[in-house]
Amino acid sequence: MSSLLDKINSPQDLKALRIDDLYKLSEEIRSFIIRTVADTGGHLASNLGVVELTIALHYHLNSPEDKIIWDVGHQSYTHKILTGRKDKFYTIRQYKGLSGFPKRKESIHDIIETGHSSTSISTGLGLALARDLNKRKERIYSVIGDGSLTAGMAFEALNHAGSLGTDLKVILNDNGMSIDQNVGALSRYISNIRTAPRIHKIKEDLEFIISKIPKIGPTVSKSVERVKDGFKYIFLSGILFEEMGFTYIGPLDGHNINELLVNFKNADNIEGPVLIHITTVKGKGYKPAEKHPVKYHGVNPFIIGNGEQKKENKRAEYSQIFGETMLKIAEEDDRVLGITAAMPEGTGLSIFRDKYPERYIDVGIAEQHALSLASGLAAGGKKPVVAIYSSFLQRAYDQLIHDICIPEFPVTIAVDRSGIVGSDGETHQGIYDNSFLRIVPGLIIMAPRDENQLQHMLYTAVNCGKPAVIKYPRGEIIGIEMDQGLKELQIGKGELLLEGEDLLIIAVGSTVYPALEAAEMLERHGIRAGVIDACFIKPLDGDLLLDNIKQYRKVLIVEENVLNGGFGSAVMELLNENQVYDVEIKRSGLPDIFLEHGPQELFRKLYKLDSTGIYETALEFVSEGLEVYNYGR
Amino acid sequence: MSSLLDKINSPQDLKALRIDDLYKLSEEIRSFIIRTVADTGGHLASNLGVVELTIALHYHLNSPEDKIIWDVGHQSYTHKILTGRKDKFYTIRQYKGLSGFPKRKESIHDIIETGHSSTSISTGLGLALARDLNKRKERIYSVIGDGSLTAGMAFEALNHAGSLGTDLKVILNDNGMSIDQNVGALSRYISNIRTAPRIHKIKEDLEFIISKIPKIGPTVSKSVERVKDGFKYIFLSGILFEEMGFTYIGPLDGHNINELLVNFKNADNIEGPVLIHITTVKGKGYKPAEKHPVKYHGVNPFIIGNGEQKKENKRAEYSQIFGETMLKIAEEDDRVLGITAAMPEGTGLSIFRDKYPERYIDVGIAEQHALSLASGLAAGGKKPVVAIYSSFLQRAYDQLIHDICIPEFPVTIAVDRSGIVGSDGETHQGIYDNSFLRIVPGLIIMAPRDENQLQHMLYTAVNCGKPAVIKYPRGEIIGIEMDQGLKELQIGKGELLLEGEDLLIIAVGSTVYPALEAAEMLERHGIRAGVIDACFIKPLDGDLLLDNIKQYRKVLIVEENVLNGGFGSAVMELLNENQVYDVEIKRSGLPDIFLEHGPQELFRKLYKLDSTGIYETALEFVSEGLEVYNYGR
Repeated sequence: MSSLLDKINSPQDLKALRIDDLYKLSEEIRSFIIRTVADTGGHLASNLGVVELTIALHYHLNSPEDKIIWDVGHQSYTHKILTGRKDKFYTIRQYKGLSGFPKRKESIHDIIETGHSSTSISTGLGLALARDLNKRKERIYSVIGDGSLTAGMAFEALNHAGSLGTDLKVILNDNGMSIDQNVGALSRYISNIRTAPRIHKIKEDLEFIISKIPKIGPTVSKSVERVKDGFKYIFLSGILFEEMGFTYIGPLDGHNINELLVNFKNADNIEGPVLIHITTVKGKGYKPAEKHPVKYHGVNPFIIGNGEQKKENKRAEYSQIFGETMLKIAEEDDRVLGITAAMPEGTGLSIFRDKYPERYIDVGIAEQHALSLASGLAAGGKKPVVAIYSSFLQRAYDQLIHDICIPEFPVTIAVDRSGIVGSDGETHQGIYDNSFLRIVPGLIIMAPRDENQLQHMLYTAVNCGKPAVIKYPRGEIIGIEMDQGLKELQIGKGELLLEGEDLLIIAVGSTVYPALEAAEMLERHGIRAGVIDACFIKPLDGDLLLDNIKQYRKVLIVEENVLNGGFGSAVMELLNENQVYDVEIKRSGLPDIFLEHGPQELFRKLYKLDSTGIYETALEFVSEGLEVYNYGR
Repeated sequence: MSSLLDKINSPQDLKALRIDDLYKLSEEIRSFIIRTVADTGGHLASNLGVVELTIALHYHLNSPEDKIIWDVGHQSYTHKILTGRKDKFYTIRQYKGLSGFPKRKESIHDIIETGHSSTSISTGLGLALARDLNKRKERIYSVIGDGSLTAGMAFEALNHAGSLGTDLKVILNDNGMSIDQNVGALSRYISNIRTAPRIHKIKEDLEFIISKIPKIGPTVSKSVERVKDGFKYIFLSGILFEEMGFTYIGPLDGHNINELLVNFKNADNIEGPVLIHITTVKGKGYKPAEKHPVKYHGVNPFIIGNGEQKKENKRAEYSQIFGETMLKIAEEDDRVLGITAAMPEGTGLSIFRDKYPERYIDVGIAEQHALSLASGLAAGGKKPVVAIYSSFLQRAYDQLIHDICIPEFPVTIAVDRSGIVGSDGETHQGIYDNSFLRIVPGLIIMAPRDENQLQHMLYTAVNCGKPAVIKYPRGEIIGIEMDQGLKELQIGKGELLLEGEDLLIIAVGSTVYPALEAAEMLERHGIRAGVIDACFIKPLDGDLLLDNIKQYRKVLIVEENVLNGGFGSAVMELLNENQVYDVEIKRSGLPDIFLEHGPQELFRKLYKLDSTGIYETALEFVSEGLEVYNYGR
């Protein structure tokens, strides 16, 4: 079936094809993507939307001399297929397989790495300025979605590029969506451009009026010129972009390769920055995805016939419990608000949106604004809860410090996808937050071990009157019974879950249940391990920890976070401040690397954060000690 | 002289005045500010620019029911004077005195705290949404400079506010400057509005043309209507803001109180978000400041007569050495570029700009874009150096991780104002960067102990081919001789500066010289302290540290950073990983608080980071040990 695609192993091969064949190739690639993603899972809707665009770009440009930069990068599947990675495509987002995002290690055609949104204009501009300094001529095309354009850093880059006049093409891939529905004035503006041909009508009107003037004398003629000049504003639909210093082309049909190619050629002849506005359909060519682009943004493996996703998870996910708890809390306190940065579905906040639309705020892809807005809401007497992924909270680090924690506003940050994130890989790992959050003065940080603790902790965070973080992992809950009522926990209070003798295991969040299971396994070997759930990463329960640690010679600390500066280091600092020296500490956690993509369980096993791993580490740790004692020291 | 100001102890008192008196009051306040800042130092030019605006706002509004939010906040002096802090104004930016920024603890009129730029629309919108939910009617005015508007988060907030339609006033205080000259398309756009009355001319032209049409039939009439409708775009100067969903008013003369009051009244009658564009003169009313607004942005005490600043520093500052070293490096390598986010003077990059204008990039207040742009430049074969203050780097934390360190682009971040910052206080402290930077995988972090090491480290960073940070403090250099040539240091190599016996002091950056002096003082008491300069916070010199630490029973680690997760914790982690238990570690650093404003030396003394402090800590530490041995354990 894939007779054309079979022959394509590099962008160069593409150029042998006639334009008509490109449409046929689009269909082949589309079908190839659908078949593969149905097996592997991955980003579907966004990739189906840019098949023609990607083909047109590679047909028009000479990659890698010319540079294509994919904003976010989850829409780079066709790019990967066209640039020699067709045969490995079945490994997409699998451990040791292709990444779901552009990676420089994978291909010379992946110029810039992405994963987070809205960076492509900045990096494209950097490449353009480097080219200018090198006195070269290569073309640089940044492809950015209309959703990504709402992030401030995209504006910073537009603003800068617009003032410089260097050659840079920005393709605005307008599908009317970020991951979810778009929000914001800019989005409305773009949508107006798309749907309003009235602008062109006005040009005709003006010409009609002028034609009615019987004789054009020099005075009238001058006026006409000036008016025409003024009217350039109206003729140009993309006036906002024009005002920013870009030449605007569009809107174009992003599925019409001929139209794209003609306009790319035109754009190449324009000096300075050009914004090419194309409209595409997310999920194009696969009916279920066209109909439900949010549902088919990132998918599990699915059945092609009916689009039904194979639900692997039997249990609910933490995000869902978060959403349900928000409903409970909001019901009894109308000051509680829910805020998301374009992630109502992912964060589980969508049920809150549906129940309390007037207390729900989606700010678009704008994490910085989300946190500072929350600060203003808190100043106005509200109790805002910002639901955000751990890796995206990095975007709002200064706002957390400057706008929330310095003035001590009672804002709750619900940090989802904390810990190992799975198949999204490096850019999406939430494995740094113990470290970068606990250094912020006054910030309360808690991590529930299960869904029942999650609901109490969220309730506690919302009511503690202080800046508070509750962080929880991606994926399934433990599956325990939930208390009906919500209760406020004492801030900074950990729990001794199991008394032991030979070894104390201190765990927090996702490592608590594995620690308990490990203790059970150790018990079978006659080793009695105590287990503490710290519950709070900040403030630490100094009394509980010190009292217990002093009863042991060996303490194992386990966290799903990098070891550098993490929870284990916080415990070591506590011991150091209290001059506790006569205890051996072992810390289990993640090494100082960017963790690649692959299943959560696999990495938890690899880094000994699951029950077996903790058991093995503990066993070895205890044995080491025995050796020391046996052989004397 | 200050007969009017004498009577003003709250905004309420203001309302007793006639409008004519407000101008007189402006002059009194202006003179009061000049006299005070001449004594104390502080932000001058920005404050002189908004005297009339602040008076007009407080005259028009009822603070604190109505809310005024000061973006950045360094322009809040008149606000402080009008809101009951006149008598304490002489303490501005002094230890235990008034902060240079709005602080909620100081006054109920300080609604939101600031220090960093571009947050005021977000927080203002939060207050507005809270008000709407509370079904109240208070007015909310955010005052933001045109420079601050270039930051992405201001755009995120405009974009969001523009789509919501809630009542919010944004006063665009347009003085054509951020701290330095503005950059970017938006700035050019705003400046065009200010200077281009041609827009109105076009309206006249159109009417003239229409008047020439002999008879207006129904068809022509319809066309005229449509054209007129279309022309609303042209009539509105602030079309960019209008397109973003704001009603635009302006430009107004920001020193004309009558004009401001009339327009505030009008604005209050407009539903939805309103942008009020006012133009002001930075430094207004004080000739030297009007002439050199950059120089008089933040000033040392100065002589009012001639504006001459009393230069306290005899020695050069680190920023200057950074700038000079950039020249040396750039001379021998044309791939080296210098990037700043609106801080050419503060960072010392201005001499680089003057010598290599084509290799100098000022992105405006846009830290996120600065780092991602650098990533693109590195992808294009350049060696970009981003000069940035430590506290502003928090704004670009995700870009550092996502755009620079994950793809391992060779970008150098020159982190100025690392450590205690002095009179700017809480929001500007650079005391967290050891902690939040060292957890980023692959990032090299160095801190020079003096200016000579600074030049070699900068050279090393630029040439190491990896993401690298060099961090150095605000203020004066040590004053040692500089090597003529530059050399590449070995990455991760510390230096044993002094061999000892009783105690090992490990220092880094600004604490190295004080540690050496402390060792000398200890020597006089017969205590022999070794001193190591770690040089690199990451990677640590494991061999040097372990080899030496093992020779001591006591190790004191000193850093100008919070203790949480800092350099001291990194050393403890190293010891823990290597199972080194039989050594006592004491860490000196800053506590887990937001450090207020006050002199650097004072805090260094207070937290025992100066030579005397380190000496005292060491003495006590060594003595403790002796007690333990004396009394047996």
